[in-house]
Amino acid sequence: MIDDQIFMAQAIALSVSGMENNEGGPFGAVVVKDGVVIGIGNNKVTSTNDPTAHAEVVAIREACKHLNSFQLDGCVLYTSCEPCPMCLGAIYWARPDKIVYACTRDDAAAIDFDDAFIYEEIQTTINSRKIPMCQVSRNDALVAFKKWAEKTNKTRY
Amino acid sequence: MIDDQIFMAQAIALSVSGMENNEGGPFGAVVVKDGVVIGIGNNKVTSTNDPTAHAEVVAIREACKHLNSFQLDGCVLYTSCEPCPMCLGAIYWARPDKIVYACTRDDAAAIDFDDAFIYEEIQTTINSRKIPMCQVSRNDALVAFKKWAEKTNKTRY
Repeated sequence: MIDDQIFMAQAIALSVSGMENNEGGPFGAVVVKDGVVIGIGNNKVTSTNDPTAHAEVVAIREACKHLNSFQLDGCVLYTSCEPCPMCLGAIYWARPDKIVYACTRDDAAAIDFDDAFIYEEIQTTINSRKIPMCQVSRNDALVAFKKWAEKTNKTRY
Repeated sequence: MIDDQIFMAQAIALSVSGMENNEGGPFGAVVVKDGVVIGIGNNKVTSTNDPTAHAEVVAIREACKHLNSFQLDGCVLYTSCEPCPMCLGAIYWARPDKIVYACTRDDAAAIDFDDAFIYEEIQTTINSRKIPMCQVSRNDALVAFKKWAEKTNKTRY
């Protein structure tokens, strides 16, 4: 669709300007609702010392601020690259209607980003991951979960 | 290990206080380096309208600010629940040495959080996901990737 290409061009332009300004890697994203851009982002990991400042996360946070909501109902997210697992997770929590992407995780791997590696790690078992994971104190933490289940004035998400 | 239980107790305490203050869901996390807590977090999704404000993300961002780095070398992340895919992705980008968790994704599912669902979605193929994904303009976006590959003054991450 022509609209998709127009909004993607904005995401790609953000990817280039952010990179050229030394803000971070070559990734850009925009969130669109009713044909209007309500959030923009480019990768800012290295310039802000924030490993979570990927283009999609930055754009989602801005769009949610704009909507005064933690949900992106009716929105489309355009990203210049297939979302990494962190960003795909963020997208699923924000729940937009649709994702449009350009490059793939393998394109990202070809310029030395870990997206494909992290997809592999997430799909492997906890005990086989490169970053060791161990479990303690489950029963203590379950007490908090029980309190949540019993809480009457909670906001679900 | 006793140390792990002590730091986990702090993460669990954060999960309870955040929930009781109506900041968000019952999740807490701390980042520890050399035996010292350098970042803390609890879920703040609903109180800040930020779907990415999970306990681990909040703690990672704070720890990175403290270290003035986008990497958590030599750090351990304690989280009161197995990280969701977004948080696990964030952890992989931050690259701490170890993850210690308490509750599991199934415990989270039992109190109606989407962690297990999102794990399933991430592992499925792009065309089978509940949030539709489509691809446009890959060749245009690859131009930015090529510029990154050729960029001489870049900071890798």
